[in-house]
Amino acid sequence: MIDPYTLLCEHFEKLERLEHALTFLQWDHMVMMPPGGSESRSKAIAELTKIYHDHLASEKTGELLSRADKKDLNTEQQRSLLEMERVYHRAICLPPDLVKAQALAGSKCEHGWRSQRQENDWLGFKENFKPVVQLSREEAQARYEQYPDRFLTRYDAMVDLYCTGDSSTFIGKVFATLKKELPPLLEKVLEKQKRSNYPHLTGPFDIPSQKELSQELMRGLGFDFDCGRIDVSAHPFSTGCRGDHRITTRFRESDFLEALLATAHETGHAAYEAGRPEKWDCLPIGSARNLCLHESQSLLFEKQIFLAKPFLNFFTGAIHTHLPSTKNLNSEMLWQTATWVERSLIRVEADEVTYPLHVILRFEIENDLINGAIEVDDIPDLWHTKMLQYLDIPTEKNYKDGCMQDMHWTDGAFGYFPSYTIGAINSSQLIASIRKDFPDWGQRLASGEIDFITQWLSEKIWSKGSSMESQEIMKTATGKSTDPRFLLEHLQQRYLEEQF
Amino acid sequence: MIDPYTLLCEHFEKLERLEHALTFLQWDHMVMMPPGGSESRSKAIAELTKIYHDHLASEKTGELLSRADKKDLNTEQQRSLLEMERVYHRAICLPPDLVKAQALAGSKCEHGWRSQRQENDWLGFKENFKPVVQLSREEAQARYEQYPDRFLTRYDAMVDLYCTGDSSTFIGKVFATLKKELPPLLEKVLEKQKRSNYPHLTGPFDIPSQKELSQELMRGLGFDFDCGRIDVSAHPFSTGCRGDHRITTRFRESDFLEALLATAHETGHAAYEAGRPEKWDCLPIGSARNLCLHESQSLLFEKQIFLAKPFLNFFTGAIHTHLPSTKNLNSEMLWQTATWVERSLIRVEADEVTYPLHVILRFEIENDLINGAIEVDDIPDLWHTKMLQYLDIPTEKNYKDGCMQDMHWTDGAFGYFPSYTIGAINSSQLIASIRKDFPDWGQRLASGEIDFITQWLSEKIWSKGSSMESQEIMKTATGKSTDPRFLLEHLQQRYLEEQF
Repeated sequence: MIDPYTLLCEHFEKLERLEHALTFLQWDHMVMMPPGGSESRSKAIAELTKIYHDHLASEKTGELLSRADKKDLNTEQQRSLLEMERVYHRAICLPPDLVKAQALAGSKCEHGWRSQRQENDWLGFKENFKPVVQLSREEAQARYEQYPDRFLTRYDAMVDLYCTGDSSTFIGKVFATLKKELPPLLEKVLEKQKRSNYPHLTGPFDIPSQKELSQELMRGLGFDFDCGRIDVSAHPFSTGCRGDHRITTRFRESDFLEALLATAHETGHAAYEAGRPEKWDCLPIGSARNLCLHESQSLLFEKQIFLAKPFLNFFTGAIHTHLPSTKNLNSEMLWQTATWVERSLIRVEADEVTYPLHVILRFEIENDLINGAIEVDDIPDLWHTKMLQYLDIPTEKNYKDGCMQDMHWTDGAFGYFPSYTIGAINSSQLIASIRKDFPDWGQRLASGEIDFITQWLSEKIWSKGSSMESQEIMKTATGKSTDPRFLLEHLQQRYLEEQF
Repeated sequence: MIDPYTLLCEHFEKLERLEHALTFLQWDHMVMMPPGGSESRSKAIAELTKIYHDHLASEKTGELLSRADKKDLNTEQQRSLLEMERVYHRAICLPPDLVKAQALAGSKCEHGWRSQRQENDWLGFKENFKPVVQLSREEAQARYEQYPDRFLTRYDAMVDLYCTGDSSTFIGKVFATLKKELPPLLEKVLEKQKRSNYPHLTGPFDIPSQKELSQELMRGLGFDFDCGRIDVSAHPFSTGCRGDHRITTRFRESDFLEALLATAHETGHAAYEAGRPEKWDCLPIGSARNLCLHESQSLLFEKQIFLAKPFLNFFTGAIHTHLPSTKNLNSEMLWQTATWVERSLIRVEADEVTYPLHVILRFEIENDLINGAIEVDDIPDLWHTKMLQYLDIPTEKNYKDGCMQDMHWTDGAFGYFPSYTIGAINSSQLIASIRKDFPDWGQRLASGEIDFITQWLSEKIWSKGSSMESQEIMKTATGKSTDPRFLLEHLQQRYLEEQF
């Protein structure tokens, strides 16, 4: 007789095959599909999602999980079983009617948002948004009830979907430090920056050449084009599977740095995925740990490798070769452009110094919103007050560039935002350890060598999959759990001391 | 209570969603996927194929089919039910072990063939090929036994998979006429051609410009780029779904006509698919009828529209615009190049006049092979003898460009070849009817007008889906079932009288 654990592995393999199909149908949707294909594609994705969910949430899964006896399993298998249970419990805890109502409300809200945002139409948006929030509260309640010992609040249960293992209390403490320290640091950076000039890029920069440049950067960052590709989409993203990692970027004729930064960022995400251990393919234990670690890898590639002065100086040769009109820009000027700091309205356009403040604002609002401390109607005023407080920018009646700017909330992705800033901290913390292990890191980067970094990350992060909790991984890798001091130190060194 | 027919429609809708996923995963495989993705992709496709098959061949399908009562259905629904039964019976008649053995043997044979063909290694190939033939004979037997009244021979049951409704006896009769008439016609064509010079194309022809030219041709042939795309693959093909029709072609710097001909050909396939009636989407009755009609549409677009002298003359302006170096070639020279006739070894490179002879040779051999009249060891000699007889070319010991040149047989696709030539006849026959209905067809094509053709085809062919048998469609459209005289007349008029 085959033991239950082995049967579970086979059971999860089928999920992997279905996920493969969904992954590439969604990639195609974002990158290749003509508009006419939209209806058929949505229906096919809905059907496959249903097949996936029915298989995962089936009685058979539950029965095998309850039959699998830890005593028969080695430590690794026990851990693997734990991650299977986690995935299974997430899938079964929501009533099907709730999931369906959420899909409808989310899709309606997101669809309306696309035009309502343009029109600054808060009243219209809020009508669609209220049911989304109500349903998300129900979701949070259901997830909370499943693990009342694990979660302190309802919001915690949502955060756990994205920042798995990092509680909202933990995140709140980390953010409290940033909230206190960042504004005075930002003041100093802006004061210092007054003595510099922003070096404007003057295009047009040929797009096929930008694409070649992106490919050269990817190769420089260790990307293997036999196992992946780069394409163009409205918003850069990274997806794929073992042996086929696909990233996207977007090219503008007026600015070649934007595409390069996005390329480096997405190459970091792809590197984490490619570095997951092959032996655990198809099993939940083999997945990337959480979005806080995922974002740490993309930010590390973007901000700590590509934007590190020695590497950028090395790569400027390639920029000059592919885009000869940039020869008047030296690497110092490129660095200055890419690290320019500004108080601004829009999160996605924010720099490293101000970005965490945008995130903290959202974290605080969604925390109170899901826990029921505030209502949808309170959001605009809170947004305005917090933007004034953190970034000195009023957003009164500017919903478009205020509380309506992001897509995340429209389909109920509450708990996602904190992962961006925890990721930024993790990335600073990891690179600090790497620099300590390799005191000659600067010389290495100056000659385009990055293997010492990717090997380190592979060993300490990528190869762990989900075999440890997020903070265990951080502690094993750096000796400490996620500590905001590392981000503050990085910002101090880069933006005040111009070290790298 | 919901009636069985309605339940069947829902049951088949799920198949359509799965087919959608398979279609685009396969497209991606041929067009986009990097080599590293191959293993995961094969496994995902195998899993989805299994889910598809299990759903189609389920007891539930059988039970609903037997419960559906024709008395409760209108004529259209009765026809629809018939096509559901056809699809279902095809799926259940093969023992799962046979299907599995075929998949393994076919994949091994095809894989080996890729290098064995290069090496002219008949002995090596034949070892892998014999089991494929044996298993195909078993398949033919099983399919034959399912409908002993419908099929005269085992081979008939295989032909029916591709030329659905056109029996091998019928095809044999049609081919007998061609076999008799074509060789003397070919003699005359070659004799006449001696008085012309082959106008060599002198490239290189810029590939991005060729791509734009292909897109312009597609637009000219009515292709809607909001509902489809063109890409590049090793072998041109056409696939997709409602609202998302994807064709491929291939570009060579030395020859721009090849890509244009392939583009016109695949645009014809796509037009048929796009023209299928929307009301029958997801149902077998809504599928394209068979490959003989499919190929007739692609050949009609390629040979009867694009290569018709008035249209080619009209389109030469676009060729000169996109590829300025072709300005020394007038449309007459382009026509001469594209209609050059030559006795040659390779089917896929053959012209309209000799192509049917390549097909008839294969039809005769596979007919005898599946029915057990000959064995694999007999193939090379038969190939040599028939090539000498039909095309005056010896292939002794030249397996590479002889009996090993095609991929079709390697994975057991016996019965496919005749569809190429039945398609060519259908295409000549359909265009003859169109010319009769529109005596000013020449003037219309000369100004790039093709709507009168596509509307005619839409009404007579595309909109029929599978609601009639192949020959009923031909008779309703042209007054006659497939008649080889129309192809012979077309060849006479084009190659001896140079009418179009």
